[in-house]
Amino acid sequence: MPPLPLVYALILAGGAGTRFWPASRARRPKQLLPLLGGDPLLVETVRRILPVAGGASRVLIASGRHLAEPTAAVLRDIPPENLLIEPAPRNTAPCIGWAAARVARIDPSAVVMVLPSDHHILDVDGFRAVLTAAVASAARGVITTIGIRPTHPETGYGYIELDAAVSSAGPLDTAPLAVRRFVEKPDRARAEAFLASGRYLWNAGMFFFRAGDMMDALRAHQPELAAGVTAIAAAGEPGSEAEREALDAIFPRLPAVSIDHGVMEHHGSLAVIPGDFGWSDLGSWQSAWELAAKDPLGNAAPDGTIFVDSHRNQVVDLRSAGAPKRVIALVGVEDLVVVETDDALLVVPRHRAQDVKHVVDRLKTRGDGELT
Amino acid sequence: MPPLPLVYALILAGGAGTRFWPASRARRPKQLLPLLGGDPLLVETVRRILPVAGGASRVLIASGRHLAEPTAAVLRDIPPENLLIEPAPRNTAPCIGWAAARVARIDPSAVVMVLPSDHHILDVDGFRAVLTAAVASAARGVITTIGIRPTHPETGYGYIELDAAVSSAGPLDTAPLAVRRFVEKPDRARAEAFLASGRYLWNAGMFFFRAGDMMDALRAHQPELAAGVTAIAAAGEPGSEAEREALDAIFPRLPAVSIDHGVMEHHGSLAVIPGDFGWSDLGSWQSAWELAAKDPLGNAAPDGTIFVDSHRNQVVDLRSAGAPKRVIALVGVEDLVVVETDDALLVVPRHRAQDVKHVVDRLKTRGDGELT
Repeated sequence: MPPLPLVYALILAGGAGTRFWPASRARRPKQLLPLLGGDPLLVETVRRILPVAGGASRVLIASGRHLAEPTAAVLRDIPPENLLIEPAPRNTAPCIGWAAARVARIDPSAVVMVLPSDHHILDVDGFRAVLTAAVASAARGVITTIGIRPTHPETGYGYIELDAAVSSAGPLDTAPLAVRRFVEKPDRARAEAFLASGRYLWNAGMFFFRAGDMMDALRAHQPELAAGVTAIAAAGEPGSEAEREALDAIFPRLPAVSIDHGVMEHHGSLAVIPGDFGWSDLGSWQSAWELAAKDPLGNAAPDGTIFVDSHRNQVVDLRSAGAPKRVIALVGVEDLVVVETDDALLVVPRHRAQDVKHVVDRLKTRGDGELT
Repeated sequence: MPPLPLVYALILAGGAGTRFWPASRARRPKQLLPLLGGDPLLVETVRRILPVAGGASRVLIASGRHLAEPTAAVLRDIPPENLLIEPAPRNTAPCIGWAAARVARIDPSAVVMVLPSDHHILDVDGFRAVLTAAVASAARGVITTIGIRPTHPETGYGYIELDAAVSSAGPLDTAPLAVRRFVEKPDRARAEAFLASGRYLWNAGMFFFRAGDMMDALRAHQPELAAGVTAIAAAGEPGSEAEREALDAIFPRLPAVSIDHGVMEHHGSLAVIPGDFGWSDLGSWQSAWELAAKDPLGNAAPDGTIFVDSHRNQVVDLRSAGAPKRVIALVGVEDLVVVETDDALLVVPRHRAQDVKHVVDRLKTRGDGELT
């Protein structure tokens, strides 16, 4: 048996988005929200992967400058130098490269797990088993991803094509399979064909590699990017002034490319571990409601909310702790989402939640951008 | 032409009720709310009748002890002694009697107009013309009421039966007609028959009489009550300690009877002036919405509210002036009422608004009576 590798996690926590307005804001994006009650999704993500990574000192968090403070505020156990704060948004490849270059300086054979920060996973033990299998695959020198066994013909996700079908139900073997190719979001008909074939898995944006292998891949497919992140990591200790100066000078000019397009699609040999652990990207109020704790009438709401002949509603109270106590009452309504923050109140039927973007547009147009 | 009578107004402002919760509360009933934007209904009422009454010194306001402070706060121009604060709720006859006894001490031939405090009137000039006609009728020694020409077979109001039909459209003559009888709230079939006959008007709870005539009527039909209110008025100057002591000793023991049952139904000769001036008792969110200023899509809301594909909604923001600025956004909803106060938020379809009473019940049951 090979020696256990050092394992790092890189959690991508730079996401923005307005789908959850007014809960989510420019400075309080989805990963910083306790969308399912409890802790912010980012905190849940760290907690979930911590036993597989080698502790908090090996957890890296990539985010943007405007999110540095609120991100650090929810992750007090993570050393400050582990926050990889991008001076400008450059898509995923540059920050993954930066993390890989940092880890490669310490140990090129250490495995890095790249993970989204704002998803939900029901079966945490099952997820950790798949993570462990992916780490083991990566430790053997193969860039590895996780593919989620699809449950429906989703048109909102990218897919990973395999050579052969996996079983459509029951436990999945965690042995790595070869990736035939990555597929962009399909239309409905193709998504249905994908589902029927059994040869397609959802791409959940999770990647595993030895730091040295990623640096090799970057040098092969993104040489400018590879040179840039190597120079940043070489400039000084993590978190040092020297590193920050190099970062500011170099990072904003790196090619803004995703790891999928910039590396994975060109890479010869990729492995995927199929998984089925109750994954959700929590992409909408619909999925947030489906996963939330609900009363027998389907209402998800803070304690004390009063429902009279009301069903399948979701009430989210994100007002600050100092806000006055307030009772919320819903009478004779169904399938509504009611969100309140200190400065906004939204009422929308769950199936119309995607139209909340029009509210954000209007606020910007009328000069209320601070509310977005 | 007879000399112009002294005219007093007695505005009945003791009403409670939970139909407009959380806007209305035990200490902030409907008449104290700006239900249609602008000023509280009570303030609108005073403004509407002031030119017919002889100025603010001749406006009396009847209310309960728990409402004395908020009522005085919105009526700073009314002399404090004009607030007739009932020590205990005893229905309408005792406080109308108290007002009549007070005015009779000054001038038994002065006319008292008894008016509700929480209704709305579209055609204020038309209303004042009817008031003036009713005052003139009362000044001739006939207890007079106003009857509203009905617009639909309403089952929520009492009716006044006439001897002959009034015209069903167009201007109405303001000559007094004889009242045949008062009729309790009818069922639907009777209400339809009333409407078809043209001989029934809505009883809007407005009464006009000379103070001395009302005292005579009370002595005839409610002698105990007449003696009590006479003793209260004789005890001391309006607003004096002596008056208050007599009030506290006598008023709570007066018969708790309405002026309709206690006097009007027994009185031989009553006149009614028919009127049609856009009257509404504002009995529900439905009527509040109908009368509110609305945008072209039928939404009634404070400035700055954002509506996306939303129609015929009503948003009421009664948070205190010091509350933080807040944007309210409705997306893809119709016919909803959204009410927010400092301590409560309600969402209810307008046609379900009567079920808000169940919220009030639950709050009381769970020990949150201060929210009701």
